Amino acid sequence: MPPVVGVIGGGQLARMMVPPAIALGIDIRVFAENEGESASIAVTTLGDYRNVHEVLQFAQGVDVVTFDHEHVPQEVLAALVEAGVRVHPGPHALLYAQDKLLMRERLGELGLPMPDWARVESPEELDAFIAEHGGRAVLKTPVGGYDGKGVRIVSAASEAADWFGNGPLLAEELVSFQREVAQLVARRPSGEMALWPLVETIQRDGVCAEVIAPAPDSFERLAAVASDIATRVAEALDVTGVLAVELFQTTDERLLINELAMRPHNTGHWSIDGSTTSQFEQHLRAVLDLPLGATGCREPWSVMVNILGGPTVGEFTGPYPQALADQPTVKFHGYGKAPRPGRKVGHVTATGDELDEVTYRARAAAAFFSN
Amino acid sequence: MPPVVGVIGGGQLARMMVPPAIALGIDIRVFAENEGESASIAVTTLGDYRNVHEVLQFAQGVDVVTFDHEHVPQEVLAALVEAGVRVHPGPHALLYAQDKLLMRERLGELGLPMPDWARVESPEELDAFIAEHGGRAVLKTPVGGYDGKGVRIVSAASEAADWFGNGPLLAEELVSFQREVAQLVARRPSGEMALWPLVETIQRDGVCAEVIAPAPDSFERLAAVASDIATRVAEALDVTGVLAVELFQTTDERLLINELAMRPHNTGHWSIDGSTTSQFEQHLRAVLDLPLGATGCREPWSVMVNILGGPTVGEFTGPYPQALADQPTVKFHGYGKAPRPGRKVGHVTATGDELDEVTYRARAAAAFFSN
Repeated sequence: MPPVVGVIGGGQLARMMVPPAIALGIDIRVFAENEGESASIAVTTLGDYRNVHEVLQFAQGVDVVTFDHEHVPQEVLAALVEAGVRVHPGPHALLYAQDKLLMRERLGELGLPMPDWARVESPEELDAFIAEHGGRAVLKTPVGGYDGKGVRIVSAASEAADWFGNGPLLAEELVSFQREVAQLVARRPSGEMALWPLVETIQRDGVCAEVIAPAPDSFERLAAVASDIATRVAEALDVTGVLAVELFQTTDERLLINELAMRPHNTGHWSIDGSTTSQFEQHLRAVLDLPLGATGCREPWSVMVNILGGPTVGEFTGPYPQALADQPTVKFHGYGKAPRPGRKVGHVTATGDELDEVTYRARAAAAFFSN
Repeated sequence: MPPVVGVIGGGQLARMMVPPAIALGIDIRVFAENEGESASIAVTTLGDYRNVHEVLQFAQGVDVVTFDHEHVPQEVLAALVEAGVRVHPGPHALLYAQDKLLMRERLGELGLPMPDWARVESPEELDAFIAEHGGRAVLKTPVGGYDGKGVRIVSAASEAADWFGNGPLLAEELVSFQREVAQLVARRPSGEMALWPLVETIQRDGVCAEVIAPAPDSFERLAAVASDIATRVAEALDVTGVLAVELFQTTDERLLINELAMRPHNTGHWSIDGSTTSQFEQHLRAVLDLPLGATGCREPWSVMVNILGGPTVGEFTGPYPQALADQPTVKFHGYGKAPRPGRKVGHVTATGDELDEVTYRARAAAAFFSN
């Protein structure tokens, strides 16, 4: 019998695990909240991921449980582990992707480079932090934020009055960076790791807009430092599966850890078309403790551009056929999601020898979907 | 709503249509005969493809019907067309993939190059054909053969006594060929066509064993002739979707048409990993009459090796983990089928710059599965 991977969450990350599961001969089953979600082709259970009983029932028929998102509560994860279910990444690792304050504390213990930060419990503490950091700070809710949600740049605590009173907040220095980069790594329970090349990520309104692989002008030492940081995080936190480490490259050429994600990540979507082994295939291999695949670039450059808002990739009455006709070398990825302003509904990836030309093709393809 | 493609047949060709359907945002539904078939993740209906009523019911919810195999009877196809269902390839084209005698007659009318052949109704006619063709002939049952089944090399009609009495047979000259090649083309209902490079195919016991893309030493004129032949067949027979034209390259450098298949084909599996657009993605685009993708090679060489018999790719207690560890750059494709002697249960593809080295890697990966 083929191994069975159970994925909690029915979003586009679960959806994009399905093609490599089919190729590798893995049986993939998805636990989703609602009908018609992105990964619906592989959904075998509808339920609430906060319900211990429902999740345990789903886990009974699977060899390993992994995740489309990081929101499964620790008590549900603990119940899985107690029931003898293999869970990757494990609760003790996921904790640091779920709670940004715990993450900062742990990275601090490990001596890893990151922006100055503080736990702030009151407006007074935040104002003190702001005063010490040039009059501005990045304020984050420790739990539940994503794609720019739960993040606010403030110059006075009064600008975040509505956020106080629900537990501590995370204040971070506003880093003077020249660009953002991301280092992805996959790690098996038995310890083997494989790193993709460092990539540059271009954010718009707090959301990933474009990714260039490899990161242009990433001199050898920069790439080595990024690899070292990701390796240390993966090992120290015992991460299994794909780990994405988002980093600031500062104006003085330091790398500071911005965020961690313990799952396939938007900054790794280029790997579907651009790397010998995609992050989705590698995640499946890793959580099953199978040997990892090669992570080199298939062509010198890959550029991934997100499609935000819509019209949806896959809506064949819209501009999709024109986009296909205009860019026959570009690979299109639809997420099966209804369009909504700002929502990630798909992405495109172009690959080739010349960065300018590759970037042009990817942007030209994505532009058909902007509205 | 995304377009819905209905595939009749639940084998590995339907299975391999699922990943590009997911990427393109297409809703794919498979009509299979039994539970647990290769394409089970996309199966929405179990039934008998010879049953008009069951197939019509399946077709009600889909935008276009296409096929995993060529065995759907003409009366079922006719009923679909009559009911207003879009069917690609259409019955009038499929006819020539279903009946090798009709195919030879039609290709003859078109003046396309092929081996000498004859319709033989009696042992006497066969013996006469054998006498005229050097003492041997390839005898074929016109309908239902595949992978070497329904094909016999005979030097006397007495060697095929069991085949007479069930209608006419097809006798063909035993061609003196230096190698076999295949030309794949995709064609949309509106006429657009895209051709992959000519590939070399290596058969063992009448079954495809290896494919090299592009065919080594395929000088310009050879490739041009193959393209011309495939283009003429696709247009004259009004083929839609992928058409595979298997050809003999004779010792005197002619190309003769051996077989036609009107669906993705084993000789195109390399394109999943080796071409910008795989045959499975292109087939979906073509049957939906969407613009076709680029068909160039992503790397100079691709070598595909079939896994026959087993153990199954995906059986993680067998040699699969060793194969993954040994060949981290090779792409593995399991079909979710139980092993059986000679059965196609998967394939591997290696790509790269040096043909010798690429061939070595593909064969080394496949060798783990030989028993």
